Amino acid sequence: MNIKVIAFDADDTLFVNEPYFQETEEKFCALMQDYLSHQGLSQELFRVEIQNLSLYGYGIKGYILSMIEAAMKISNKTISVDVIEKIIEYGKELLQRPIELLDGVEETLQALHGKYKLVVATKGDLLDQRRKLHNSGLGHYFHHIEVMSDKQEKDYHDLLNRLEIKPEEFFMIGNSLKSDVLPVLGIGGHAVHIPFHTTWAHEKIDHKVEHKNFKAVDKITEVLPLLL
Amino acid sequence: MNIKVIAFDADDTLFVNEPYFQETEEKFCALMQDYLSHQGLSQELFRVEIQNLSLYGYGIKGYILSMIEAAMKISNKTISVDVIEKIIEYGKELLQRPIELLDGVEETLQALHGKYKLVVATKGDLLDQRRKLHNSGLGHYFHHIEVMSDKQEKDYHDLLNRLEIKPEEFFMIGNSLKSDVLPVLGIGGHAVHIPFHTTWAHEKIDHKVEHKNFKAVDKITEVLPLLL
Repeated sequence: MNIKVIAFDADDTLFVNEPYFQETEEKFCALMQDYLSHQGLSQELFRVEIQNLSLYGYGIKGYILSMIEAAMKISNKTISVDVIEKIIEYGKELLQRPIELLDGVEETLQALHGKYKLVVATKGDLLDQRRKLHNSGLGHYFHHIEVMSDKQEKDYHDLLNRLEIKPEEFFMIGNSLKSDVLPVLGIGGHAVHIPFHTTWAHEKIDHKVEHKNFKAVDKITEVLPLLL
Repeated sequence: MNIKVIAFDADDTLFVNEPYFQETEEKFCALMQDYLSHQGLSQELFRVEIQNLSLYGYGIKGYILSMIEAAMKISNKTISVDVIEKIIEYGKELLQRPIELLDGVEETLQALHGKYKLVVATKGDLLDQRRKLHNSGLGHYFHHIEVMSDKQEKDYHDLLNRLEIKPEEFFMIGNSLKSDVLPVLGIGGHAVHIPFHTTWAHEKIDHKVEHKNFKAVDKITEVLPLLL
């Protein structure tokens, strides 16, 4: 292997994310419990999120707007303005959650730092991700953050073009098979999958991966023997 | 001059932007006209926007959320949910406005393309900017888009670090003295100012710039004699 750039997914690879969204969703469901079952509310919110995805992209601001829209739809516009105020409040709380690093992350970055160009490759909102990286104290390990509008093969092609490297020089580490692994393998790069206990429905796939450039590990520190 | 990278601001430098925001603001004011004067509404909205800037950053999604919040505050939560629905609708329209290229942009990019690395350097939302660049048909002139969380000297330092170039190799073109010119000159880069007829209050400065690395022009094509 002649790896030049190692890219880390951020959310649920470097630090906890999806559980915070799920907590917010719980609060949304509690707020709207008079209208539908918990499952019905979750489904309706998810439907609105996916409908808005091409317009809003990923990230918390679009999520807040989708919650507001879902609340209006579900209630047939009978909710009070207080509910909308609460949703915005929950969203602002979500934006300001403290960072919870995942196990072994700092140790791994420390060991790889200086030996490779390390970048963060994420679909989230740039401002959110920069804030998180800054607050996490991990910022100095990374050359920069690459915010991708999506993580399909096309988007990884663009990324490699920006980084001015070849696919075989690229190594991606992340918790989503769909976003961090399959497209990277598809264009000829290397990928490691570190499953996280909670996965957003939109990221779930039912797929078994076998590939010479692929490895699944349980903990991020297990990438070190592959790279050092 | 030994310029390696030319960076273009996007909004109101490559294509029309602020007039669209102002049209949306007009609609917001019409919606809320029972509560305050036009000026009072504009001021209140601006106050909420600035309050939310560190949390939401720049871009349309944060603007929609700030309009909703301002509407609730201004009406003391007496507005109907229909008003909020309207605001989201206006925001979605704003996200989907067709691209209107400014005069001479394509001609300028065509002339510089292949001679320099051209990038877009913008504070907007990455997804919005990518969509606009794609729809404008200008995408192929640019090496990539740099989305900056702000445009202060620190942010330009980060940008040069990512681009791996020295300040004197950097040439910035934009419509905001505050964001596109002063910080670039401050770190030793080159900058050209192309005033646009409409400027957001937050970008306005009262300042006369004189600097060996600076030039003000009326039209973007006037940068060509400086660079060719």
